[in-house]
Amino acid sequence: MDFNLSERQAQLQQRTREFIREQIIPLEKDPRQTPHGPDESLRDELVGKAREAGLLTPHASEEMGGLGLSHVDKAIVFEEAGYSRLGPTALNIHAPDEGNIHLMELVATEEQKERWLRPQVQGRIRSCFAMTEPSPGAGADPSMLQTTAVRDGDDYVINGQKWFITGAFGASYVIIMAKLEDGSATMFLSDMDAPGIKLERAMDSLDSCFTGGHAVMRFENLRVPGNQILGEASKGFRYAQVRLAPARLTHCMRWLGQARRAHDVATDYARTREAFGRALGKHEGVGFMLADNDMDMQTARLHIWHTAWLLDQGNPCNFESSRAKVVCSEAEWRVVDRCVQILGGQGVTAEKEVMQIFMDMRSFRIYDGPSEVHRWSLARKLLSAEGAH
Amino acid sequence: MDFNLSERQAQLQQRTREFIREQIIPLEKDPRQTPHGPDESLRDELVGKAREAGLLTPHASEEMGGLGLSHVDKAIVFEEAGYSRLGPTALNIHAPDEGNIHLMELVATEEQKERWLRPQVQGRIRSCFAMTEPSPGAGADPSMLQTTAVRDGDDYVINGQKWFITGAFGASYVIIMAKLEDGSATMFLSDMDAPGIKLERAMDSLDSCFTGGHAVMRFENLRVPGNQILGEASKGFRYAQVRLAPARLTHCMRWLGQARRAHDVATDYARTREAFGRALGKHEGVGFMLADNDMDMQTARLHIWHTAWLLDQGNPCNFESSRAKVVCSEAEWRVVDRCVQILGGQGVTAEKEVMQIFMDMRSFRIYDGPSEVHRWSLARKLLSAEGAH
Amino acid sequence: MDFNLSERQAQLQQRTREFIREQIIPLEKDPRQTPHGPDESLRDELVGKAREAGLLTPHASEEMGGLGLSHVDKAIVFEEAGYSRLGPTALNIHAPDEGNIHLMELVATEEQKERWLRPQVQGRIRSCFAMTEPSPGAGADPSMLQTTAVRDGDDYVINGQKWFITGAFGASYVIIMAKLEDGSATMFLSDMDAPGIKLERAMDSLDSCFTGGHAVMRFENLRVPGNQILGEASKGFRYAQVRLAPARLTHCMRWLGQARRAHDVATDYARTREAFGRALGKHEGVGFMLADNDMDMQTARLHIWHTAWLLDQGNPCNFESSRAKVVCSEAEWRVVDRCVQILGGQGVTAEKEVMQIFMDMRSFRIYDGPSEVHRWSLARKLLSAEGAH
Amino acid sequence: MDFNLSERQAQLQQRTREFIREQIIPLEKDPRQTPHGPDESLRDELVGKAREAGLLTPHASEEMGGLGLSHVDKAIVFEEAGYSRLGPTALNIHAPDEGNIHLMELVATEEQKERWLRPQVQGRIRSCFAMTEPSPGAGADPSMLQTTAVRDGDDYVINGQKWFITGAFGASYVIIMAKLEDGSATMFLSDMDAPGIKLERAMDSLDSCFTGGHAVMRFENLRVPGNQILGEASKGFRYAQVRLAPARLTHCMRWLGQARRAHDVATDYARTREAFGRALGKHEGVGFMLADNDMDMQTARLHIWHTAWLLDQGNPCNFESSRAKVVCSEAEWRVVDRCVQILGGQGVTAEKEVMQIFMDMRSFRIYDGPSEVHRWSLARKLLSAEGAH
Repeated sequence: MDFNLSERQAQLQQRTREFIREQIIPLEKDPRQTPHGPDESLRDELVGKAREAGLLTPHASEEMGGLGLSHVDKAIVFEEAGYSRLGPTALNIHAPDEGNIHLMELVATEEQKERWLRPQVQGRIRSCFAMTEPSPGAGADPSMLQTTAVRDGDDYVINGQKWFITGAFGASYVIIMAKLEDGSATMFLSDMDAPGIKLERAMDSLDSCFTGGHAVMRFENLRVPGNQILGEASKGFRYAQVRLAPARLTHCMRWLGQARRAHDVATDYARTREAFGRALGKHEGVGFMLADNDMDMQTARLHIWHTAWLLDQGNPCNFESSRAKVVCSEAEWRVVDRCVQILGGQGVTAEKEVMQIFMDMRSFRIYDGPSEVHRWSLARKLLSAEGAH
Repeated sequence: MDFNLSERQAQLQQRTREFIREQIIPLEKDPRQTPHGPDESLRDELVGKAREAGLLTPHASEEMGGLGLSHVDKAIVFEEAGYSRLGPTALNIHAPDEGNIHLMELVATEEQKERWLRPQVQGRIRSCFAMTEPSPGAGADPSMLQTTAVRDGDDYVINGQKWFITGAFGASYVIIMAKLEDGSATMFLSDMDAPGIKLERAMDSLDSCFTGGHAVMRFENLRVPGNQILGEASKGFRYAQVRLAPARLTHCMRWLGQARRAHDVATDYARTREAFGRALGKHEGVGFMLADNDMDMQTARLHIWHTAWLLDQGNPCNFESSRAKVVCSEAEWRVVDRCVQILGGQGVTAEKEVMQIFMDMRSFRIYDGPSEVHRWSLARKLLSAEGAH
Repeated sequence: MDFNLSERQAQLQQRTREFIREQIIPLEKDPRQTPHGPDESLRDELVGKAREAGLLTPHASEEMGGLGLSHVDKAIVFEEAGYSRLGPTALNIHAPDEGNIHLMELVATEEQKERWLRPQVQGRIRSCFAMTEPSPGAGADPSMLQTTAVRDGDDYVINGQKWFITGAFGASYVIIMAKLEDGSATMFLSDMDAPGIKLERAMDSLDSCFTGGHAVMRFENLRVPGNQILGEASKGFRYAQVRLAPARLTHCMRWLGQARRAHDVATDYARTREAFGRALGKHEGVGFMLADNDMDMQTARLHIWHTAWLLDQGNPCNFESSRAKVVCSEAEWRVVDRCVQILGGQGVTAEKEVMQIFMDMRSFRIYDGPSEVHRWSLARKLLSAEGAH
Repeated sequence: MDFNLSERQAQLQQRTREFIREQIIPLEKDPRQTPHGPDESLRDELVGKAREAGLLTPHASEEMGGLGLSHVDKAIVFEEAGYSRLGPTALNIHAPDEGNIHLMELVATEEQKERWLRPQVQGRIRSCFAMTEPSPGAGADPSMLQTTAVRDGDDYVINGQKWFITGAFGASYVIIMAKLEDGSATMFLSDMDAPGIKLERAMDSLDSCFTGGHAVMRFENLRVPGNQILGEASKGFRYAQVRLAPARLTHCMRWLGQARRAHDVATDYARTREAFGRALGKHEGVGFMLADNDMDMQTARLHIWHTAWLLDQGNPCNFESSRAKVVCSEAEWRVVDRCVQILGGQGVTAEKEVMQIFMDMRSFRIYDGPSEVHRWSLARKLLSAEGAH
């Protein structure tokens, strides 16, 4: 057992930390941030800075232009990047691009990679992932998929409605989950400017950290050539799992950075603000919250590291990534909620960075499987004859 | 012991419920709502509707033009009004006007009442309450008051900075807390357009339910005649308590209405949305949240009723209103957080009313004394020789 | 709305409080307490004291020899009795006798009442209630009932095994739940010394407050005449509900008394024990626990009062008594757990009364329906078309 | 970073697991267990089995006769040993001997080691640790030490009272914490049969897993030669820290084993017991508890591993061992409490092993520093200029 970072990891950690502090945090008040995320010009500037710093898309393979980070490497780097709400956008490691890049590396054809993945790794284009549908379609339960792909010669014709499609406005390509006539699910790739893709509206949301916001979109007789199937036909759900297990974990990493940021802001405040005759933090009612924050963050970090290490060993980690997702999303949320409470009026106003973190993070307990779905899935595995381990 | 509503209470409950459902909820999507609350024109329309319905400023005395509600009456009516986020504005029972009206009735002179209170009860003008100050001034600990009032002939000259002043933009008058040269605290009344009052900026905040938002304001040699002292000089902290004990409780009432609204939205969703083969609510993971919501809401309601009844008996309720404030603010928050979780993606977007309630309500665990200050105060009383009771 | 106690209630409260303090608490260290509860001789002494004080079996009708307490009256008196762990035994208001007396009053024939109920109200005999069975029989789910009653002429012949039968050792009669050949459930009365009733063993348990402990018992061809059916045949489950709704609530009352006792012990300790330079209670980490205790106890009390009042109005309170049971059992448990924590080493040893309360109370979150079964039942009602109210 | 067990660790884990399952669990119902722990004859039998299996006192150095386990090795082995409540006694790794052995190895003289440590490592004698005192003496705040050691020639004369002295009855030697005339604290070694040591009484306690129970003891002019000072004079508090940081962590390890045992019992029950139409565990209300158990156990395990690894690197881990102690004691307690709830009636009776685990474990949130003292200490470090890291 060894908890040491490798020399390379330690260097990457340090470099990312400095990059975020010196290059990215100063842009946090930039007015090019909208209720639907940083706008494209701000994103381009952020990505440009990461490119210059040699930190762009670090999880992509070296062949594609990344740094070829392992899962544990990502745990180190992504936490640092998450320390600023603009950091994941800068490094091109935010959802949904981060997960799409991962999936494309694993299952896309060479041709698909050259067309979509390479420019994406270079930060020149963005993508989205179209799975979730309005009721009665696929939500927490993906098996309720309604969008259809009907074979027509060498093409497929796709119809359906999707929503909560993060990053759709401004994306260059989309990965579409649709079901074939035999009911099996398949993933398709399409340019976003293809006829038949309609962005119906932007959704107003609590978070505002994703460039392109969240969209309602519709496929109306979208025609996709057979060579734009991603991977093999009928393996859609399997690929969704391949994408999700590590993607969930990268959320845990990035939000851990944001939780740490909130905690640092709150700690600083607790050190200096006086009330009832002493520094706020000297009141146990506040000090205990700081202690609980530290426990929760370390808990999250250890689950992340352990699960990342397992992934690096080739373990699919369906169980462990579910567990880490619940543990981290809930622990990190408690941290941010406590920070709001410590900051008082300044926690619920834009006087401090924490209000925005609070708004951005709440959805994390919901997306990539709400806590309840993961608990149900964990329980099922624990109850099965062989247990989870 | 008797938990029956009086006939009048039952009628008021029914009338308010219908008024909110029929007249106010349809306005909830009205575009005249801004990040700093409903604008003045929307407010005027809302107030006009309540006036017409005979429900305007119901807590004011009949002499002043209200319905002369007792505290228990308020518990009934304010919960119903809170069922819409626009309801308290419509009935003119929102913070800070609700508490200011209560305080003015108790301690203002006849002349002060005619000048400011009567038009306020009629919904024609609004007010604000200037107590909280930036560090190192008065926050959760009011004794740190920095704003000064220096006697100059028959006048007082006030200097200082305040922030988190709810409703300041657009308010007609302000109650100012300042300390005299002997260090004692005194409340002053002033028109908001007096020379020497400067609204420095609006504060961006998580909530957006208060007309006029929250302001940073400054008093620069604000001159206030001696007859604009509210009540007696040097009784500022005492009046703050007189204002706060019931004002805290009215927050509990209004937010209980909002919690109930969120719960109804979530219950409806849990009844109809299907996942994993049955209605969402049939999954215990969701059903248990609904059960917990019901427990929490009933707990809040019972604490409100009991404390309101004690106030009606003449009990100052310093202990009980602190206790109710912590219990209700935390219980109602849990309800809303669970509703967000049940609604999933629709809980963190404007697809449903709940996201806005979530944003509006978070501050309730902070204002009028954060939970930690109340717990500290309750503990002190429990430990004192005679105990709390 | 009125939270006043009637003069009679206030007097009963005062009398019971003094009786417990002066007559019962001094017996708490009496060596006649065993791992299976106070022994019969101690019980007789306790009951004798209550009889003398005019407080014996106060919930029974005056006709039967009780004080004819309403449900709200019981809320007042039982909380006081519960202040000592011997109090409920003294007043003859402990489970299962309390609930059995209630049920017998409602549905027993005159003959049955004279034979069993009258001496029981006089404290001369005890009873037990035989419903729960080992797997795969009736547990939290009563519909899994296995014990059979087969008609044979005018008699019924009963066979089956029961466990967790509180008070069985030393009881004079038993109420047996068994199913008829048509599958319907029926309650039977039988003397405990009837041939065919076998007490197989005592069960070692966490609690030790019930005289007679908990038994495993077996019915082997127990022959019961038809006139020993309790109420009407086939109404067993309905009667179980009639018995349970108020019986659950009386648990809430008694344990509230025990929680208050623990809290008083812990508060006293927090006032006097010093650590790190001041009284323990002056540390917010401890003071906040006291504040939370007070909140939890008041929450429990208000739910009890409200539900009791509803029962007095003739409301069956299936929903409300479930809700109160979950709220109270969890709130009161939190109180006792916090008291253990405040007392430190003295909380986990017999140096203080709290360790025993901790051991006795844990089962309360389980019996008369574990929290999970109640939450499930509450959710089901909340989701039904008409809602719970 | 590497979470692999070494080959030796994996073998030790396997051997210990099998040893516990085959040799120790069958003795769990042995009647030689008393309210004050396994009696000496049972202890001897247990220790004999571990000796035969080559697993006795494995944390002692090889030189002294142990296996020379590192802290991480201990994490692996002690969790396995803890799977039976008799395991730590068998392996001679229970409090207080485990920590005493560790301290003796570090600071005792060769002579002291030969006299006391070597036979203790061989399992032939036991020891106790006399620090805690009745009010107003040393409790959670060790600086309140009252016991005095007054120099008299080459000897010291010790007077004072101690309580909660685990294992005192039957122990051969004691480590005594006393203060010198200059107020500094010093540790002394003494045979237990020395004149001047009086065991006043055994304390009845919630737990019953420690041989020798917990005693109140008194030193009356106990004369100790100067060469029985442990380590150097006046370093008592420093040694207490040296002893405590790892000792706290070994509690986390052993109790993790007990939590896992409880979880396995509850999982097995949830798989097989039916209620409301399906296996208990298929109800989300129960299944979610199993999932939470797994999360809590993994959280505890990761904190243990990480802190143990840091200790192995030579880090004193004052911060980390405090943090791990709070996290583990609370997480493991939640596991056991949930298991009680899942088992229902069988959770609160001796039908299952879990009731005893519940009783034994509650003190863990208190001893070696209650959660509140650790949170206070963590907060203080987090607030200090340099932070905790």
